[in-house]
Amino acid sequence: MSEKKSRTALYPGTFDPITNGHIDIIKRASALFDTVIVGVAHNRQKQPLFSVSERMEMIRHCIEDIDNAVVDQFGGLLVDYAVEKNVNAVIRGLRAVSDFEYEMQMALVNRKLNDSLVTVFMMPHENYSYLNSSIVRELAIYGGKIDFFVPKYVKHKLLEKLQSNESTG
Amino acid sequence: MSEKKSRTALYPGTFDPITNGHIDIIKRASALFDTVIVGVAHNRQKQPLFSVSERMEMIRHCIEDIDNAVVDQFGGLLVDYAVEKNVNAVIRGLRAVSDFEYEMQMALVNRKLNDSLVTVFMMPHENYSYLNSSIVRELAIYGGKIDFFVPKYVKHKLLEKLQSNESTG
Amino acid sequence: MSEKKSRTALYPGTFDPITNGHIDIIKRASALFDTVIVGVAHNRQKQPLFSVSERMEMIRHCIEDIDNAVVDQFGGLLVDYAVEKNVNAVIRGLRAVSDFEYEMQMALVNRKLNDSLVTVFMMPHENYSYLNSSIVRELAIYGGKIDFFVPKYVKHKLLEKLQSNESTG
Amino acid sequence: MSEKKSRTALYPGTFDPITNGHIDIIKRASALFDTVIVGVAHNRQKQPLFSVSERMEMIRHCIEDIDNAVVDQFGGLLVDYAVEKNVNAVIRGLRAVSDFEYEMQMALVNRKLNDSLVTVFMMPHENYSYLNSSIVRELAIYGGKIDFFVPKYVKHKLLEKLQSNESTG
Amino acid sequence: MSEKKSRTALYPGTFDPITNGHIDIIKRASALFDTVIVGVAHNRQKQPLFSVSERMEMIRHCIEDIDNAVVDQFGGLLVDYAVEKNVNAVIRGLRAVSDFEYEMQMALVNRKLNDSLVTVFMMPHENYSYLNSSIVRELAIYGGKIDFFVPKYVKHKLLEKLQSNESTG
Amino acid sequence: MSEKKSRTALYPGTFDPITNGHIDIIKRASALFDTVIVGVAHNRQKQPLFSVSERMEMIRHCIEDIDNAVVDQFGGLLVDYAVEKNVNAVIRGLRAVSDFEYEMQMALVNRKLNDSLVTVFMMPHENYSYLNSSIVRELAIYGGKIDFFVPKYVKHKLLEKLQSNESTG
Repeated sequence: MSEKKSRTALYPGTFDPITNGHIDIIKRASALFDTVIVGVAHNRQKQPLFSVSERMEMIRHCIEDIDNAVVDQFGGLLVDYAVEKNVNAVIRGLRAVSDFEYEMQMALVNRKLNDSLVTVFMMPHENYSYLNSSIVRELAIYGGKIDFFVPKYVKHKLLEKLQSNESTG
Repeated sequence: MSEKKSRTALYPGTFDPITNGHIDIIKRASALFDTVIVGVAHNRQKQPLFSVSERMEMIRHCIEDIDNAVVDQFGGLLVDYAVEKNVNAVIRGLRAVSDFEYEMQMALVNRKLNDSLVTVFMMPHENYSYLNSSIVRELAIYGGKIDFFVPKYVKHKLLEKLQSNESTG
Repeated sequence: MSEKKSRTALYPGTFDPITNGHIDIIKRASALFDTVIVGVAHNRQKQPLFSVSERMEMIRHCIEDIDNAVVDQFGGLLVDYAVEKNVNAVIRGLRAVSDFEYEMQMALVNRKLNDSLVTVFMMPHENYSYLNSSIVRELAIYGGKIDFFVPKYVKHKLLEKLQSNESTG
Repeated sequence: MSEKKSRTALYPGTFDPITNGHIDIIKRASALFDTVIVGVAHNRQKQPLFSVSERMEMIRHCIEDIDNAVVDQFGGLLVDYAVEKNVNAVIRGLRAVSDFEYEMQMALVNRKLNDSLVTVFMMPHENYSYLNSSIVRELAIYGGKIDFFVPKYVKHKLLEKLQSNESTG
Repeated sequence: MSEKKSRTALYPGTFDPITNGHIDIIKRASALFDTVIVGVAHNRQKQPLFSVSERMEMIRHCIEDIDNAVVDQFGGLLVDYAVEKNVNAVIRGLRAVSDFEYEMQMALVNRKLNDSLVTVFMMPHENYSYLNSSIVRELAIYGGKIDFFVPKYVKHKLLEKLQSNESTG
Repeated sequence: MSEKKSRTALYPGTFDPITNGHIDIIKRASALFDTVIVGVAHNRQKQPLFSVSERMEMIRHCIEDIDNAVVDQFGGLLVDYAVEKNVNAVIRGLRAVSDFEYEMQMALVNRKLNDSLVTVFMMPHENYSYLNSSIVRELAIYGGKIDFFVPKYVKHKLLEKLQSNESTG
C-alpha cells in the first residue's frame, strides 16, 4: 500500500489583528493540507498595533478548534522561513484585483528565489471580501460595530488595547 | 500514529489543446495533492478544434511522467462532477486580472452550490503568462512558430488536424 | 414653501431573466427616486431566452411590492428613450472591475450624446456580487440549484421555458 | 395628490483643495437630490495642506451658485454622520479601476454598518478623469499651470498658502 | 556627422471604420517615427461592415495631411508582415485596463515570435478614451449623433453603407 | 533627398537602484530613438537609499554599451525638463494594471500641461515583469539572492551601501 506524503502549508501575514476573513481561509486550507502554519510576520517597516506575541496569542485562541493548524512567527525572507519549515505551499487570500497584482508579483519573486515553493491563492467567503485588519482597526478607533468582522475575543482585545493606548498616549 | 487523509484535486478545462502553461500547473498541483484529475469539459457552446477523446489522448501523452495525475472528461455542472469524484479542491490557473474576475465569480457560484468545495488558484510560470489555447490555435493556422508554447507531440497533432480540416473543409 | 421636484430614474437592462441582484438594485433605487422605470431593452444582436413581454411580466411580478417602480420596454438608443421619458438618472449596477470599464465607457458615450443625462452606479448586495442572468440560465440548463439566485416565480418560469424548448427543439 | 419625499445626499471627502472634478460631481448630484451636503472629513492620519475651515471656505465659494448644496464638516465614522444628517445617499466619484475597488470596499463596509445607507457612484467629466487634489498640490508646488484643474479662487488660495508655508517653513 | 537611421512604425487594426481616436494616435505616432504604416488587418473571423478596400480608402482620406503616414493591408500573422516591411515598432492604442491586458498578451506573444519587434503603447486624447469602432457603428445604426466621434467623410460613408445594407438586406 | 529628423526620448525614474527591467527598456528604446536620456528624478518626498549621483553613476556603468543613451538628473516638473531638453517622447515601463492607471493619469496630466509631449509605454521582458527597485532593496536587506534582478555591479554597490548603513545606523 502506498504511503501518503504529509504536506504543510504556510499562511503568512501580519494579522494585526486576525479577522473572520483570515479564519475562513485557515479553515479551508486546513481541509487541504496535513498541517497549516499561520506565520506572523515581523514587519520592520510598519508600527503594528499589537506585538507579535499578542497577535500570536489571539490567533491561537481563534484556531484552537482546528486540529492541524499551528501558529508561529518569522522575520526575514518568507522563502527562507518556508524552506526551514519544509513548507509545500504558501497560501495567500485574494479579495480584489489590487490584491491580485501585488500577490502575483510576490509569488513570482518567491518562485524565482525558490522554484519548488508553490503559492496557492484562496478566496475568503464573499461576506468578508471587503475586510482587512486596517479597516477593523479604523472602525474600532471610531467606535464602529465590529462584531461581524472579528471573533468576540479579538474584539475584546482590540477595545482593551485602544483604551490602554489612550490612557498612556 | 495518525493516518494521512488522501486528497484529490480537479483541474478542469477545455484543453483545446493542452499547452505548456497547463502542464506547468499540473506539475505543481501534483506536488500538493495525492491525486490530480485533469478534467476535460464537454463544451456545449463552442465548437472545439479537437474532439474530447483527442484532447484526452494528448493530455495523457503529456502527463505520462506524472504518477499521480489522471485524465477524465465531464459534462454538466462542475460541482456535480467534483462531488461524484470526491474532489477536495478545484484548481484554476490565474494569468491576468481578466482571468481573475471571471474565476472569482465562478468560484463564488460553485461555493454557493457546494460550500465544501474549495477553489485554489495557481499561477503558471511567467514564461507562459500570456499563453492560452486559442492563441496557440491562431498561431498554428497562420504558420507561426509554436515550439515554445506546446510540447512537440501536441504541435504535431495540431498541424495534422489543420491539414485534415483544410483538405475536407 | 418650496416645491419638491419629482425625479425619475431609468434602470435599463436585458433582464433575461431578472435576478435577486437586479431586484436588490431596484429596491435601493426606489428609495432615492420618485419613480424608477425598469426598462427592458430589445436586443437586436443576442437571441434572448425569454421574449420581451415574458421578461416584462416576470419583472412586474417581482416588483409588485415596490410602489414607485414600473416596467417598460425600449428599442433604439438609451439616450433617446431616456429623453422621451424625462429621465433624470440612468442607473447601472456595478459588480466587478470588468463591469466598471464597460459601464464607464457607455456612461461617457451617453453623456456625450446628452450632457444632462447622469449615470449613477449602484452595487448589488455582496451576496449577489457574482450573479448575472447568463449564469442563472446556465445553472438552470444543467439542473443546478438556483433558489438562492432568483425568486421562486422566476425559477418556475425558467424551468417551464427550458422544458418547452427541449420538447420543441 | 401624493407628496414628494425630500432626499439628501452626502458627498464626503478631504477636498484639500476642491478641484473642478469635485465641482462637476456636486453639480450633477444637485440635479438628482433635494439637498447635497459637501462633507469635509477631518483626517486624523494625513497632514492636510489646508485647515478644515479653509477647505470649507473654498468649497463655499465654488458652490455659491448651486442653491441646494451646502458645506459641512465631520469627524468619526461616515455612517454615524450620515445617520445624524438623515442622509439618503452617499455620493462618491469614480475615476479609475483603483478608485473603484477601494470605493467598493468602503461602500460594502458602510452598508454592513447601516444597511439603509446607499452609496451611489458618479463619474466626473472625462476632462477631469485624471484629476485629484494631490496632483493639483504637487503641480502648484513646482510652478505648474493649474488653471485648467481648479477655479481661479482656489488657485489663488493655493499659491498664497504655498508662499506662506515657504516663508515660515 | 552621424547619419540618422530611418525608422518605421506599424499601426495595425481593423479600422471598421477609422475614428477620431485612431487619427489622434496616427498624428502623435507620425511625430515620433519617419514612416507610419496604418495596416488594415484582414479579419478571418468577424464579418466587417466595410471591405478592406473601403476601410483603406477612408483612412487614406483622413490622413492625407500627414506626410509620413501611409495605408496598407495585411493578412496572416502581424509579426510576419512587420518583418516584411522592416518595421521597428508596432503601435497600439491603450484606452482602458481591459485593452491593456489583451494588448500586453499580444505584445508578449509577438516578442516571443520575434524578439526585435518592439510594441509601444500610446494613449488617444481623453476625449476619445471611450471610443471604438463598434460603438460608432452601433450609434450610426440607431441614428445617434456621431459627429464628435468620426470625421465628416467617414460619417457620410457610414450612413451610405447602412442605407445600402438596409435596401439590400 | 529628405532629411531625417533627430528624435530624443526621455526615460524618467527614481532608479534606486537601476534593475535589469530598466535596462531592458533602455535597450529597446535606444533602437527606436536617436537619443535616449535616462533622467534620474530628485524625489522630494521619499528618502532614497542611494544619492542622485550614486544612482547616476550606476546607470552610467550599466548602459555604457548603448551608444545613444545618456544619463541626466532633474528636479521639478517632468514637462518642464522635457521641454528644456527638446524631448519628443517620454518613455514609461508598464508591468501591471496598477502601473497602468497611475501612468495613464500622469500621461494625461502631462499632456494637458504640454500637448506636444507624447508618452509612450513599453513593456519590460516578462522575466522582469514583477521586478521593481523596492523589491530589490528589500531582498538585499534580508540577504536574498538578487543576481537575477540586477547587474553584478549594482549588486555589489547595493551590498556595500547596506553594510555601510548598518555600521553607521
